[in-house]
Amino acid sequence: MSDCTVGVLGGGQLGRMLALAGIPLGLQFRFFDPSPEACAREVGTLTIGAWSDHEALRSFAQDCDAVTFEFENVPTASLNALESVIAVQPSRLALATSSDRICEKRFFQSCGIAVQPFAEVGSVKELDIALATVGTPGVLKTRSLGYDGKGQCVVRDARAALEAWNSLGRMPCIYEAFVPFEREVSIVAVRAKVDGVVQFDAYTLGENVHRDGILHTTIVPARVHSALIASAREHARVVAEALDYIGVFAIEFFVADDVLIANEMAPRVHNSGHWTMDGAVTSQFENHLRAILSLPLGSCAQQNAHTAMLNIVGCVPSASTLLADPSLKLHLYGKDARKGRKTGHINMCADTSTELLRLLSCAEHYSVQCVL
Amino acid sequence: MSDCTVGVLGGGQLGRMLALAGIPLGLQFRFFDPSPEACAREVGTLTIGAWSDHEALRSFAQDCDAVTFEFENVPTASLNALESVIAVQPSRLALATSSDRICEKRFFQSCGIAVQPFAEVGSVKELDIALATVGTPGVLKTRSLGYDGKGQCVVRDARAALEAWNSLGRMPCIYEAFVPFEREVSIVAVRAKVDGVVQFDAYTLGENVHRDGILHTTIVPARVHSALIASAREHARVVAEALDYIGVFAIEFFVADDVLIANEMAPRVHNSGHWTMDGAVTSQFENHLRAILSLPLGSCAQQNAHTAMLNIVGCVPSASTLLADPSLKLHLYGKDARKGRKTGHINMCADTSTELLRLLSCAEHYSVQCVL
Repeated sequence: MSDCTVGVLGGGQLGRMLALAGIPLGLQFRFFDPSPEACAREVGTLTIGAWSDHEALRSFAQDCDAVTFEFENVPTASLNALESVIAVQPSRLALATSSDRICEKRFFQSCGIAVQPFAEVGSVKELDIALATVGTPGVLKTRSLGYDGKGQCVVRDARAALEAWNSLGRMPCIYEAFVPFEREVSIVAVRAKVDGVVQFDAYTLGENVHRDGILHTTIVPARVHSALIASAREHARVVAEALDYIGVFAIEFFVADDVLIANEMAPRVHNSGHWTMDGAVTSQFENHLRAILSLPLGSCAQQNAHTAMLNIVGCVPSASTLLADPSLKLHLYGKDARKGRKTGHINMCADTSTELLRLLSCAEHYSVQCVL
Repeated sequence: MSDCTVGVLGGGQLGRMLALAGIPLGLQFRFFDPSPEACAREVGTLTIGAWSDHEALRSFAQDCDAVTFEFENVPTASLNALESVIAVQPSRLALATSSDRICEKRFFQSCGIAVQPFAEVGSVKELDIALATVGTPGVLKTRSLGYDGKGQCVVRDARAALEAWNSLGRMPCIYEAFVPFEREVSIVAVRAKVDGVVQFDAYTLGENVHRDGILHTTIVPARVHSALIASAREHARVVAEALDYIGVFAIEFFVADDVLIANEMAPRVHNSGHWTMDGAVTSQFENHLRAILSLPLGSCAQQNAHTAMLNIVGCVPSASTLLADPSLKLHLYGKDARKGRKTGHINMCADTSTELLRLLSCAEHYSVQCVL
């Protein structure tokens, strides 16, 4: 793998962690990002450019042996420019499917995966129809470009629906029934083709808790019964096959009445897979790189019986207090603190769920001391 | 830890792996190395300079919040220049002790640790006395600057002794009795002071096999009985206390007649501790950084019952064949292949020793295909 350069669209923490996983494989990294502050700059060469600068994108691609992304809202025109030079993995079919919430829901249905009732909203008339067919309460979301709870509003009645649509700028939206879920879980999986032979594997199902629309913790394995764990893995396999997918991806599900209801997928390494850096034989970052380079996949097996990840949001905690527990593993992204900004995460592994919950409460105690 | 820069003297693979472990703690890295090809350049800022360029060393130190080394033959005058600006950890007492084989042996003795019979050789007369008192066979080694089997000769009789001394340039030497050892083992340990309180921990004792004077494999735990494992840990603790040591270090022992005979120590992260990157909760690299920054130490506990490390020497193997076993963990150093040069290592973990030996033979099979 000497002299193999991976180009990453986006230079945030996901790019940074891809490089930290890939450098030991002998890979070198280039990042394309509009911001000179992109935190991946410490582990590779940063090209600062606008997504609309197609000449810069083509020149970037020419220096790379493979190109992937850590940021899924790459404009189609930018992809066209890049793909005039080199293929981008995962493919644009996966990107196109996941970047439009209506397409994504229909795709899940086509894979035989349950979704909550939903309707397309492109006009006031469609909003009325959506409310009538889906009912209230519900959630109005922009069809594309939403993340971390941005671009969405909870809707409790018809008047609130119109306000919500106005507040979202009357953008094309999806209206989804509110699911009274018991838990949120996510499966992180990887698919590759090595010498033409498909390899697929999935990490243990994780259970996610969100706060203010941002992922707060992932606990592995999810506390659901084993049939659901097997079912999530099978859903991931079907999705990956349908998209002829190459790389790591995540699917988030609600668990309601012991049924998995697909919420959304991310065609990239995912925050709910950060536990794999310390809790799995091969991290999601290394497996994503192996996949896009057609290298054999590493084992997704868990290292310990129990693992958890806690996001650090809105602060950069003191390492000296945080590391006081010898079992907490700190991952900072080299980003300044800002309200609502993810600046790092803490991983922890344990042999028992009791020990895991003790570590999690330790980590939480240390990480919240400085929240902005 | 934001905006904390660690300076590393030497920019080889040990520096590179220190940075890969430290970047997730929010640290940034600078390396000082005479070579523009130093492989750590990919993960930090490289200052290219001669060890004799004291102005460059002082300027380097001024940009750092802590300075350590990955290369133990830093000249004393260079240390003086650096320490006019900032303290270097581990301390020069440890460096001075370990860089002279006679001092090192006497130091082990003062710690109550057995060493093989040895004598100082600075003249033909001393060589004769050494042969008479220590006997043959033995090994003649330069007192300083030897590594990976360089700077030493096996001596079978008096005539060979003189030839050996001539071939070593009549440098100040040590003559050591040849120990008919059963195994070679090494303990990697770490000591820190956090808020003035000493923290000490040691990794599980490893068993080493050398080939042509270069470490070939480390198997953990060493296949010796538990009393020896406890004894090695206690020796490491005594050595660390005696030197008021800060950081990671390794002591290599011969095992002969169920006794540990100290061979040498290295006041730095050590090749026989590379297994900790995948086999321990906290790697030796992260713990070295925690120690020199007075941060609480991470756990040295093993992740799996059995772990091994295989060095890749003289080649850069094909990742696609090497990664075919999903449990092999590849660590390449970004170095071109050259005869006798370490270009990477492979780690593997298993629940049983049988499975470990299977993985080791797989790794060996793949890694030797391209030896120069």
